[in-house]
Amino acid sequence: MCELLGMSANVPTDIRFSFAALARRGGETGPHVDGWGISFYEGRGCRTFHDPEPSARSELAKLLRNYPIKSRIVVAHVRKANRGRVSLENTHPFSRELWGRRWTFAHNGQLKGVKRLPLTGFHPVGTTDSEHAFCWMLGQLQARWRALPKPAVLDRAVADLCAELHGRGVFNMLLTDSRSLYAHCGKRLCYLTRCAPFGTATLVDEDWRVDFAQETTERDVVTVIATQALTRDETWTDLARGDVLVLRDGGIRLVKPGQGPARTLAAPVSGPHAC
Amino acid sequence: MCELLGMSANVPTDIRFSFAALARRGGETGPHVDGWGISFYEGRGCRTFHDPEPSARSELAKLLRNYPIKSRIVVAHVRKANRGRVSLENTHPFSRELWGRRWTFAHNGQLKGVKRLPLTGFHPVGTTDSEHAFCWMLGQLQARWRALPKPAVLDRAVADLCAELHGRGVFNMLLTDSRSLYAHCGKRLCYLTRCAPFGTATLVDEDWRVDFAQETTERDVVTVIATQALTRDETWTDLARGDVLVLRDGGIRLVKPGQGPARTLAAPVSGPHAC
Repeated sequence: MCELLGMSANVPTDIRFSFAALARRGGETGPHVDGWGISFYEGRGCRTFHDPEPSARSELAKLLRNYPIKSRIVVAHVRKANRGRVSLENTHPFSRELWGRRWTFAHNGQLKGVKRLPLTGFHPVGTTDSEHAFCWMLGQLQARWRALPKPAVLDRAVADLCAELHGRGVFNMLLTDSRSLYAHCGKRLCYLTRCAPFGTATLVDEDWRVDFAQETTERDVVTVIATQALTRDETWTDLARGDVLVLRDGGIRLVKPGQGPARTLAAPVSGPHAC
Repeated sequence: MCELLGMSANVPTDIRFSFAALARRGGETGPHVDGWGISFYEGRGCRTFHDPEPSARSELAKLLRNYPIKSRIVVAHVRKANRGRVSLENTHPFSRELWGRRWTFAHNGQLKGVKRLPLTGFHPVGTTDSEHAFCWMLGQLQARWRALPKPAVLDRAVADLCAELHGRGVFNMLLTDSRSLYAHCGKRLCYLTRCAPFGTATLVDEDWRVDFAQETTERDVVTVIATQALTRDETWTDLARGDVLVLRDGGIRLVKPGQGPARTLAAPVSGPHAC
């Protein structure tokens, strides 16, 4: 298995605090030693850092800890390989361009027979089931529209594709088109939203404590989603299996499998303060 | 204008020496302050570092100077913007997947009316002429074959597409499919091959001197291509306008515009030693 970390915010936000916890799980506080990667979106542009080394011992991960990149969407992954050898081309997140947008995808779990799903416009560079699933999803979307559809229409289409993959095994996933961040819970994902009045938080994996009131303005809204809670003194909300969260500008909409339109969620309680 | 740097080698090779010279041209020894990027191939996998900051003052460029990545193909670029604002999505190199290969492209020069070239499977994320030209090239290749053709066939097709863009302005370009590195000379490109017996070299842009005999084995072959010579005590060979070099495993083949099959070149003299 692997672990995922995603972020959606309404202002460019520094993810280093959350990423520090995830990175330690790649060989210190967790067993995910088979590579890691992180994608930062700045508008439509995206930069991705990949390393097949364990994140807890990676020089590149250490560098990122000291290098603030402010981003409104982040997708990160630490890998424990089950299918596909340990190599750069098998290191998540994977990315492709569709409709002039840069799409990024990361997955944890195992999928049965996914390589039998037919591919059209997109093909894997590596050998993982995950990249095959990503290529299949994008091919399905490309076949349906010639240009990026409206958000609500795309939300439902992504949720339907997730439901199909959910039937094949464990499909915990993060996917973004640079506008929305989609999260599908196959087995385990949790999230929280930070907004005013901001409090403090301490990582689970090390004694790093941040007072968000010092780092933010009153209008900031930041939602973080992860396989397991990253902080020990905030309240993380578990997603149910089969749920899809759609995050835009830090706000959350929930798509339940096989149901009608997405439902906007009130942001959950986060630490000692609600928003 | 911008500057380009490419490398092809038959063994995983550390590019930091050459990249140090290029990076200084992004704001110190050259005026290319509008972002930079570098792609390293490790097998079929690729990692790219992008930064819209000037490379001479970039924290990320400094980090890479201390972080050895051994690669067989490298494409790097420092940008002086003429078309398309300074932003992450307009920062070269650009990349796409085609036929299950990761393609990477960097360009220097200006092209007239290139945005009128029709696009099919690939679309720009940013607003540069360069990314449009790249998307057009890949679309043309995709329309012609369903899977990666044999190298010699692809070489000729890439050379023909380059010739078409060459007619529209200045098209100095590096392109790779993770197997071959293509270089087209629109106005200015030069190269050298380092192989046994290895000598020493000193950068043009700073007093960094390397004795390659200490860093290599007798069988290593490394070809470096750049807009302007990077070292002051080696002999760089200028390409003629319209020439396409095809680099595989450090070896060089020259495709002259409008002529028959590619011609294998004897590697040129490099410093005090020939190979």
